[in-house]
Amino acid sequence: MFRLFNSLPRPRFAVIAAATGIATVALLFAKPAVAYAAGVDEDSAFVFNTFAFLIWGALVMWMCAGFTMLESGSVRTKNASMICLKNIGLYSIAALAYFFIGYNLMYNDVAHVIGVPGFMYGPTGAEEALLGGNDGAAADVLAKGAGYSAMSDWFFQMVFVATAASIVSGALAERVKMWSFFLFVLVLTAVIYPIVGAWTWGGGWLSQLGFSDFAGSTIVHSTGGWAALAGILVVGPRLGKFRPDGTVRSTPPSNILLVTLGVFILWFGWIGFNGGSQLGLASVKDAVAMSIVIVNTNLAAAAGVVVALAVSRPLLGRIDLFAILNGAIAGLVSITARPDITEHYWAVIIGAIGGLIVVLGLKLLEKAKLDDVVGAVPAHLFAGIWGTLAVSITGGAPIHIQALGIVSIGALVFAVSWGLWKLMDLTISARVSYDVERLGQDAGELHMESYPEFVLMPDMEED
Amino acid sequence: MFRLFNSLPRPRFAVIAAATGIATVALLFAKPAVAYAAGVDEDSAFVFNTFAFLIWGALVMWMCAGFTMLESGSVRTKNASMICLKNIGLYSIAALAYFFIGYNLMYNDVAHVIGVPGFMYGPTGAEEALLGGNDGAAADVLAKGAGYSAMSDWFFQMVFVATAASIVSGALAERVKMWSFFLFVLVLTAVIYPIVGAWTWGGGWLSQLGFSDFAGSTIVHSTGGWAALAGILVVGPRLGKFRPDGTVRSTPPSNILLVTLGVFILWFGWIGFNGGSQLGLASVKDAVAMSIVIVNTNLAAAAGVVVALAVSRPLLGRIDLFAILNGAIAGLVSITARPDITEHYWAVIIGAIGGLIVVLGLKLLEKAKLDDVVGAVPAHLFAGIWGTLAVSITGGAPIHIQALGIVSIGALVFAVSWGLWKLMDLTISARVSYDVERLGQDAGELHMESYPEFVLMPDMEED
Amino acid sequence: MFRLFNSLPRPRFAVIAAATGIATVALLFAKPAVAYAAGVDEDSAFVFNTFAFLIWGALVMWMCAGFTMLESGSVRTKNASMICLKNIGLYSIAALAYFFIGYNLMYNDVAHVIGVPGFMYGPTGAEEALLGGNDGAAADVLAKGAGYSAMSDWFFQMVFVATAASIVSGALAERVKMWSFFLFVLVLTAVIYPIVGAWTWGGGWLSQLGFSDFAGSTIVHSTGGWAALAGILVVGPRLGKFRPDGTVRSTPPSNILLVTLGVFILWFGWIGFNGGSQLGLASVKDAVAMSIVIVNTNLAAAAGVVVALAVSRPLLGRIDLFAILNGAIAGLVSITARPDITEHYWAVIIGAIGGLIVVLGLKLLEKAKLDDVVGAVPAHLFAGIWGTLAVSITGGAPIHIQALGIVSIGALVFAVSWGLWKLMDLTISARVSYDVERLGQDAGELHMESYPEFVLMPDMEED
Repeated sequence: MFRLFNSLPRPRFAVIAAATGIATVALLFAKPAVAYAAGVDEDSAFVFNTFAFLIWGALVMWMCAGFTMLESGSVRTKNASMICLKNIGLYSIAALAYFFIGYNLMYNDVAHVIGVPGFMYGPTGAEEALLGGNDGAAADVLAKGAGYSAMSDWFFQMVFVATAASIVSGALAERVKMWSFFLFVLVLTAVIYPIVGAWTWGGGWLSQLGFSDFAGSTIVHSTGGWAALAGILVVGPRLGKFRPDGTVRSTPPSNILLVTLGVFILWFGWIGFNGGSQLGLASVKDAVAMSIVIVNTNLAAAAGVVVALAVSRPLLGRIDLFAILNGAIAGLVSITARPDITEHYWAVIIGAIGGLIVVLGLKLLEKAKLDDVVGAVPAHLFAGIWGTLAVSITGGAPIHIQALGIVSIGALVFAVSWGLWKLMDLTISARVSYDVERLGQDAGELHMESYPEFVLMPDMEED
Repeated sequence: MFRLFNSLPRPRFAVIAAATGIATVALLFAKPAVAYAAGVDEDSAFVFNTFAFLIWGALVMWMCAGFTMLESGSVRTKNASMICLKNIGLYSIAALAYFFIGYNLMYNDVAHVIGVPGFMYGPTGAEEALLGGNDGAAADVLAKGAGYSAMSDWFFQMVFVATAASIVSGALAERVKMWSFFLFVLVLTAVIYPIVGAWTWGGGWLSQLGFSDFAGSTIVHSTGGWAALAGILVVGPRLGKFRPDGTVRSTPPSNILLVTLGVFILWFGWIGFNGGSQLGLASVKDAVAMSIVIVNTNLAAAAGVVVALAVSRPLLGRIDLFAILNGAIAGLVSITARPDITEHYWAVIIGAIGGLIVVLGLKLLEKAKLDDVVGAVPAHLFAGIWGTLAVSITGGAPIHIQALGIVSIGALVFAVSWGLWKLMDLTISARVSYDVERLGQDAGELHMESYPEFVLMPDMEED
Repeated sequence: MFRLFNSLPRPRFAVIAAATGIATVALLFAKPAVAYAAGVDEDSAFVFNTFAFLIWGALVMWMCAGFTMLESGSVRTKNASMICLKNIGLYSIAALAYFFIGYNLMYNDVAHVIGVPGFMYGPTGAEEALLGGNDGAAADVLAKGAGYSAMSDWFFQMVFVATAASIVSGALAERVKMWSFFLFVLVLTAVIYPIVGAWTWGGGWLSQLGFSDFAGSTIVHSTGGWAALAGILVVGPRLGKFRPDGTVRSTPPSNILLVTLGVFILWFGWIGFNGGSQLGLASVKDAVAMSIVIVNTNLAAAAGVVVALAVSRPLLGRIDLFAILNGAIAGLVSITARPDITEHYWAVIIGAIGGLIVVLGLKLLEKAKLDDVVGAVPAHLFAGIWGTLAVSITGGAPIHIQALGIVSIGALVFAVSWGLWKLMDLTISARVSYDVERLGQDAGELHMESYPEFVLMPDMEED
């Protein structure tokens, strides 16, 4: 995504510019067949670019269902309904917060943040004028200026914000208070993520230094991961997770079928997440790039699974399906910073190392007594850091710039998140009461059960 | 959808016509570069329009899975298998009924209703001739006449019929006899919905009066809602739902995770439902309109969720996840009549009011002792009426025309549906026997259980 | 898929060639408007074709989730986690095996099978050169040579391999050892399927004889079915499935809601499976063909459901939801060899017969004491044979060629698969131990439970 907002000499703009120029010349010499051969016409280019944003954006929207299934299948049944609520709530809050505040903060000047045209008519108002009937000049401005519908881009950017927020809900499941979580999501999607985005995809200082993160290993996934880690530190582990005798209580997923479904949804959606981040489909080169991105994304995820499967028994003592499923996520996160790599074997290697990192990360977190219910920190933060560094290892941006991006974004997100979690903890409380936690958030906060007709095991350890 | 069938001066036809005209002139003057600048060429236009129908249609087909999960997770476990069967059955019956009868009734003259070319070769047979090898004249006719593949349009229309039928199955769950339900679906999809469609999208009297319903708040959703309401009145509430002492028995969803999944599927599919209803993607203007439609759809759903979340405790006494999930549906239904509104804050307001309506509607139905298992009537009928009226409130078609459309379609659908349910009730019986209902339709009609290995709570109240 | 690799006079190449030729002439005579009218320009054609591969390929990838849900909901709870693992594992292994070996074996000469450019840079390396910055000559070569991105085609082909492998896991569920299964998948996806593909879509002897299988009724589905049947014969039925007294133990799906979800996912994905197999979207004719393919696919599935519903009680003694869901699959498999038939009523008939075949097939297998847990052999092999023969019945390729294809592919796949299963059985053992099988593979091999908090019925018969 970086490249579109950051670079004038982007291929398809060049193609369009060339075509336009040639067309003009051609008009003079009555040889427009040259223009014809030069590529996709301007209107078709606009349609291609826009349609790609919409379709791939729809697949990214669908990733919210993936996070919901992954998380609600991972938690204990007594908290599964709350996870469903948090996920549909966070997506909705993210959509509105990014609409009213976030997008303008990320891509436009600050004066527009809460400005009237800012939220009432989208980024410019030109598209609304066009749709309202004013075909002529506005259409030209639009088509020539951007090459795609600003609203389609808005949609694609919006679903990315939601992804970052989704990462947090799983990590902090089973003990974060609903209203505190929603307040955090509001700030994350209206302010924190947009600032990270402004530094990078919005054309800010990190992008000017050359920081490179194709679809957001750091910008989206590590941002979510840092926010989750700050929350884990402030809110603390679930009751009884780390026993006084130093052992760790196993809290296996309550419905592994839905966890698996969630991972497949994420894999499917990631085709749009990375493929759409090519940000254009109006030339042979864009189409080739999008294809390569999707192939590499798929290869990295596959490698993450295979490596997690291979190292699961040696490192974790058993074939651990939950770790293997996280291997897919980690492979996907790892390749996200550079899915357009042309040596495809590197996609396999990057994903494979991602799979290894997530297995080690799951162990590490447990050792550090950090309670991350779904493994979001290893899968999104650790693998995100790896993927961002791998850009340099494979010959992309210099490693000190990549490291600077990782550290500065990490510092910003972690610090602000930690402060916010702490502030909430001291005021409205970030954590549910002891009674609610023991009872479960479903019964305690929602007065419902996820599976009211099923006979469930009593929790011997907590009760 | 209204606009395509109703209006000759539709933008993309104008563009195509203009391009063709200019190209002809250009040929005379050897300045075709002007034609080039005029927009998408005729063949590409055909491909764009067709591809949009196919992809967005696929997403709408997928909504059937959403209804299935929503409904089978909402009912008690003893009826969940039957809901699965009803949903895959209704989609299949709808596909065949609309193929053999419905489409022709909706869009062609009545002589073709069961005419041989009508069902054997699709609307015209020209596409079949083209595919069969006859490239020349037929291809030209096709491309110039419609601007998209008639079969892709057929597919997109067909999945809309299935949506209307899906709405009924949830409302009447747990007590409607399988064969009666399937017979109702057959009539609904072969005759009732196509007549509503003929009045509107088919170019009939309501469309001529100026009734405006972009993607079917009334035409699809209220139609399903009225049919469901008629069924609820004839078939009556589930055993024990409304107790003799006036209290209402709570029947919470048996698997809220699948209900949530279903709502996410519907939200995802609705991107295609509303986005595809732009009915064209062959110009900058169409691409802009489709983007705006999708953004507004997403905003309205988000607003529906947030408002339902906010009013849930004051109005229902607790944070009610089921009501909040219905808030998303209601937001989506509400915006469906006018997702192309250019003041996007109105999308937020329309969806927000939809969220409020569904919460109030759920209460109202309970008060009226109407047993709607999934809240289909509030979410699809009440919100559909609101959305159709909102077209006028936001400056669209005159309100008396919108009201006339709501009332006339409502009267038709409700009256025919009520008659059909009544007729079935008096003959083959619309409702299962007392024994089957107590036992559950799964064991009673299908001789199976949805979760045969799980230990379930006995139903104390009924047994 | 057959036609692309097999035929030079393919419509869109003709169109492109014609357009190019006309453009050249036009340049000489300064009348390029003729070229303009001739159709989609070369670059747009490339983008259309590529985008179709990517989107429809994404839907086929998603079918893996469908198989996973179908299978994990079908098995007893004690083996559901293992099915999840097998499915995400098989997709990952298939992706890597097809990348490193299979694709080259299927489409390129044998020297490239494990050659360095073969796997490092994809089929040619030209696209990588283009993306790496070398726009000029390479881009032209690409665009003119293939008309689509080779990597997008690779992705589309890869997800087909995974489908073939998915069919095996369900049939052999609950008793095949994990590592043996993965080894089989490796050979199937690296070697067996690619050889079948080389004979047909790769342009080999069967394609030269005129064997016709549009999207793989035989090439994909029967291949999976034969491999599954060989496994069933070698590995044998589950413990206690066929009792000593000749009766058959009923093993109903443990979670029919997820089975239903799986079937809907497959139906949705099949739109891409068959629609994408048109292999092009760069002309009016291609767009029409893709639309017809999708309509026919949908009709056949619907007919499969309706017929299975109708014959279920007479043939199986009850309305059998599991058989009806398999009716959808069988309808889809049946139409897959010829979804482009222009007499659409034939799609209904072909799917309807598929629905009948699967119900009869389920009975037949039980009679033959073959234990196919999900009905993969009737749905994919029997219906696949029927669909391939139906090509001839409806006027396609001669029946002796179709029969030859069915028999020769069947012989190859069955023989090699049987040998491999047997070899594994004699060495590492293809089947889990008696203790693991009784305990379940989840507890026995993975040391986990699929639903650890739910109280489950003890298995009276086995324990």
